Amino acid sequence: MNYFLFLLKTFKTMTAQQTKKAFHGIIPPMVTPLLSDNLSLDIDGVKYLVEHLISGGVHGIFILGTTGESTSLSYKTREQLIEESCKAANGRVPVFVGITDTSIEESIHLALIAEKAGAAAVVAAPPYYYGLGQEELYKYYWSLANQLALPLFLYNMPTHTKINIEIKTVVRLAEHPNIIGLKDSSANAVYFQSLCHLLKTNFSLLVGPEEITAEIILMGGSGGVNGGANLFPKLYVALYNAAISRDFVRIKELQNLVMEISTKIYTVGSYGSSYLKGLKAALSGLGIIQGNIAPPFTTFDEKEMVRVVASIKEIEIEVARVL
Amino acid sequence: MNYFLFLLKTFKTMTAQQTKKAFHGIIPPMVTPLLSDNLSLDIDGVKYLVEHLISGGVHGIFILGTTGESTSLSYKTREQLIEESCKAANGRVPVFVGITDTSIEESIHLALIAEKAGAAAVVAAPPYYYGLGQEELYKYYWSLANQLALPLFLYNMPTHTKINIEIKTVVRLAEHPNIIGLKDSSANAVYFQSLCHLLKTNFSLLVGPEEITAEIILMGGSGGVNGGANLFPKLYVALYNAAISRDFVRIKELQNLVMEISTKIYTVGSYGSSYLKGLKAALSGLGIIQGNIAPPFTTFDEKEMVRVVASIKEIEIEVARVL
Amino acid sequence: MNYFLFLLKTFKTMTAQQTKKAFHGIIPPMVTPLLSDNLSLDIDGVKYLVEHLISGGVHGIFILGTTGESTSLSYKTREQLIEESCKAANGRVPVFVGITDTSIEESIHLALIAEKAGAAAVVAAPPYYYGLGQEELYKYYWSLANQLALPLFLYNMPTHTKINIEIKTVVRLAEHPNIIGLKDSSANAVYFQSLCHLLKTNFSLLVGPEEITAEIILMGGSGGVNGGANLFPKLYVALYNAAISRDFVRIKELQNLVMEISTKIYTVGSYGSSYLKGLKAALSGLGIIQGNIAPPFTTFDEKEMVRVVASIKEIEIEVARVL
Amino acid sequence: MNYFLFLLKTFKTMTAQQTKKAFHGIIPPMVTPLLSDNLSLDIDGVKYLVEHLISGGVHGIFILGTTGESTSLSYKTREQLIEESCKAANGRVPVFVGITDTSIEESIHLALIAEKAGAAAVVAAPPYYYGLGQEELYKYYWSLANQLALPLFLYNMPTHTKINIEIKTVVRLAEHPNIIGLKDSSANAVYFQSLCHLLKTNFSLLVGPEEITAEIILMGGSGGVNGGANLFPKLYVALYNAAISRDFVRIKELQNLVMEISTKIYTVGSYGSSYLKGLKAALSGLGIIQGNIAPPFTTFDEKEMVRVVASIKEIEIEVARVL
Repeated sequence: MNYFLFLLKTFKTMTAQQTKKAFHGIIPPMVTPLLSDNLSLDIDGVKYLVEHLISGGVHGIFILGTTGESTSLSYKTREQLIEESCKAANGRVPVFVGITDTSIEESIHLALIAEKAGAAAVVAAPPYYYGLGQEELYKYYWSLANQLALPLFLYNMPTHTKINIEIKTVVRLAEHPNIIGLKDSSANAVYFQSLCHLLKTNFSLLVGPEEITAEIILMGGSGGVNGGANLFPKLYVALYNAAISRDFVRIKELQNLVMEISTKIYTVGSYGSSYLKGLKAALSGLGIIQGNIAPPFTTFDEKEMVRVVASIKEIEIEVARVL
Repeated sequence: MNYFLFLLKTFKTMTAQQTKKAFHGIIPPMVTPLLSDNLSLDIDGVKYLVEHLISGGVHGIFILGTTGESTSLSYKTREQLIEESCKAANGRVPVFVGITDTSIEESIHLALIAEKAGAAAVVAAPPYYYGLGQEELYKYYWSLANQLALPLFLYNMPTHTKINIEIKTVVRLAEHPNIIGLKDSSANAVYFQSLCHLLKTNFSLLVGPEEITAEIILMGGSGGVNGGANLFPKLYVALYNAAISRDFVRIKELQNLVMEISTKIYTVGSYGSSYLKGLKAALSGLGIIQGNIAPPFTTFDEKEMVRVVASIKEIEIEVARVL
Repeated sequence: MNYFLFLLKTFKTMTAQQTKKAFHGIIPPMVTPLLSDNLSLDIDGVKYLVEHLISGGVHGIFILGTTGESTSLSYKTREQLIEESCKAANGRVPVFVGITDTSIEESIHLALIAEKAGAAAVVAAPPYYYGLGQEELYKYYWSLANQLALPLFLYNMPTHTKINIEIKTVVRLAEHPNIIGLKDSSANAVYFQSLCHLLKTNFSLLVGPEEITAEIILMGGSGGVNGGANLFPKLYVALYNAAISRDFVRIKELQNLVMEISTKIYTVGSYGSSYLKGLKAALSGLGIIQGNIAPPFTTFDEKEMVRVVASIKEIEIEVARVL
Repeated sequence: MNYFLFLLKTFKTMTAQQTKKAFHGIIPPMVTPLLSDNLSLDIDGVKYLVEHLISGGVHGIFILGTTGESTSLSYKTREQLIEESCKAANGRVPVFVGITDTSIEESIHLALIAEKAGAAAVVAAPPYYYGLGQEELYKYYWSLANQLALPLFLYNMPTHTKINIEIKTVVRLAEHPNIIGLKDSSANAVYFQSLCHLLKTNFSLLVGPEEITAEIILMGGSGGVNGGANLFPKLYVALYNAAISRDFVRIKELQNLVMEISTKIYTVGSYGSSYLKGLKAALSGLGIIQGNIAPPFTTFDEKEMVRVVASIKEIEIEVARVL
């Protein structure tokens, strides 16, 4: 890097640190609607789902995350989803695009597509094939952020990527002007509180699991990237608002429904895939989208499906009653 | 089991379920004061520490947990600690005794000592050498509870025991009249919320990590088994009270100090032992007890010690200012 | 599937099971030569390296494995490598192509490129983002094999994919007419012996780690997919031959050199990446290819590089003396 | 340590390194015969089993290992087993005593009992509750070895202790005059080959899993600590001798039977406990000892028991035919 570029970069860093855009609220990790071949994008489904979310009051939409089956989709399908989602959102809410990949070239390419389509930011979990050390991870993220036009969210997902983005690594990466936040799906609340303490301002801290969004908001977190908001966006937005206004009667009532979804919809199968299969089955049961799911997974069998549909219809009535 | 015993047991179960004693509040996992041979109990230290905790307003004392280095102590020392602690507490607060062991006979023996000494309950993490299946774990705990006179707390500590007491297993075990609660040190807040939802009443849910005690209490948990309360019992009791009364100004102020302890005292070393070494070093720095630590660990070296002592003295001033 | 297709399939299965092609010997997992941008294929390097391997007497070449940094390369680069490697090999030895991916569509696409280029077989590790159950894994592989024209090797790599292809799953999958073997990189010799016992014929069992190739061959395994053969193909071929002919004087002499490479070249760095970084540094030190390495990794720094180069030059002299 | 002691120690170190006693051959990890309360030692069973092993030609007996359910037994029972086993062996073969514990005081106490009873050496896996760093582990073992009169074997058992004794740590510990060998139960053959290469002389390297004893012996290892030798000691001794004499016809024949035991007896249950349950069930089926097993495990149910007994009786006939 020559001296002029260095100065320019330093200047950009200084100003950027003062102006990092903050995001907050409920930003659902959108499921990816698929046709019955379990591979092709259901474009009508995308339009319907985006409308369902925005009319439910969500503060943003995150596509191509773990819930979005990003890594199971072909690149062509990922690109198509980016374009269709941004078109459907049409600037009404910010769209966040997952660019997680093991190849940095492919991540950067997806980020370019996202930028052209009008996305607000990109989100990247660590490269997930090789085991990395923290120093290697730090360098990887710093280099990635340098090569992106859109701002970057870190995405901590240790069960899937085999690596925890350690607290010290997040703190170091938060110095980068283009790294503006973290989505944490570890469910480790000590980790989250430590980041809240060490990164007091100017860095958006979002939590993945909906079961703990309320408490995270009460303690100062920025928002929730909650899968269940695909089903009932209004419920999660209402819970977020109740937590912001510290209305404990309301929190209790809404949290109870969130936990009903968690314990009755996400735990029907016998593997780690229960969450994804349950969520897509429930979306299908409510008539929102088809429940097709990409390999390596398959949809529930008849018996499990019947059980999920019965549960979600009961919960739907309760949600309607409470909202 | 013959029919008469079956009837008797059923009757006891029914009545017990209606009368399970609830525990709540701050119940510090007491460190074990050791003499300079790093093996023998410092009896004066035990007396002083118990007094320090009780005068700090704690709701109970938990000895022989992970923070208490239970598994590093000889059986003779464990027995001595049970007797000295109960004598020092002298009924002013309930004493909980860790009986975690890989040999069920030794667990039952420790529970007998605890009962004789006047303890209120015993606490057992899963046997931690062999890898168990959940069904095996369930049978183990049920059988253990059957053989104990004192009520039993489950203790979830997956990083140390290699097994998570799964949600379904806890729910099944909560049916036992003699199993009255769970201490969860997993830091997994989704796990904790799920238990709060599924075990709404009559089962005490305590959380280990102090960093998340406030949010757990806000969401309906019973209390915190927080290591830092060895240092500043009043601070943790105040945070518990603030959370109970939903005083968010106070919560923020106190939580900030708890996080200072967490990020400056518990993370100085380079291994998982940092927490324990940091805590004992800080206790020594404040003059509460000697900082000796049992093998397989060793105390910090000079440089780390200086750093911890400097930090804890700064924090002490802040704590005094706020309380 | 209609009845005619069922009959056809059954017929194909029966004949295929009698005729599964067996592979044996040393089949190096070829490193991917990269230009100094750490991303673009070094085509001259590919040609040189393929020639180096074939002239060293290897029995096949495996591209796009873990050693080949497959997951770090863009799809365009992977396709280019398939074409250039097959062209360079020009039918002199069979080429095996890694198609491991999280998206089944992309795996199938790579397999098509491989087929057109004249590859002998494809190799797939489990999809490595989501955690799978064994039943899910079984269905995934069966479905994948159904959609491939080339025969398929399973690739067990649990440290990277988070899942072990369990013994029972391998045995079930070996029933598929198009699944002809397994490459095991687990280093778990009990696993390997169990498969040798249960799959006595008609299934090629290759081992990844070169440190145990000799013993695996002695006990009846098919061959070794050994990274060090990129450096000294003749050494590993000679060790294979010595093991086949049970020449223990020769085995001892050659095994000693293989272990020198293992302990002096692969363990210089501080992370799991040490193997890959060490291997590429040594190849560069011997002037075989440039040592560039794709993100998320970086090449060794000067000091580590000097150490590796010094070691490999000493070993080179020993290898020349012995062969 | 004063200067005289330092000199003495140095002198002892020098001479000891030249004279470390080597052990080799089949050294079964003896199961612990229990009475029907699943807790008390079956003293007649101990006598019978020791006789069974010695008459089978074993080179030593290892009590209180993982197969011996050491951690599940009370200290009283462990002591009793040490005394009864040594008395029964009566100096005919060396007895190795497991002293693995989380409390160093208890380990040292068991070693004293072992010494008095006439044991040849003690064996210790890492303390297995807290997670340790390698430096902590190194210091622990060095300090333990300093305090023992009997020579010490390291015992690598990462699945149970959560820590791998890393290669570098073993190499450093092998410098201690009182640390004379390692038993490796990791099944990781790369690890074992690396140790064979780096510790060429004067250090006994024993392997746990019987499935790989033959190959380990072929490659220069010292012996096998094989659970199946409780059933058929002669079979494992014969396999060891065949490997020593490189009689591959014999190796193949015997290895086949060892693998039959492995795949039909050790894999009947659904948990990690299958090995232990299967082994004790088979011993009971052959009438060698009762099959009682200590908590946290339980014996197989009827159906699994019938299956194991049928298999072991078939294998018994084959073993008789071959030997």
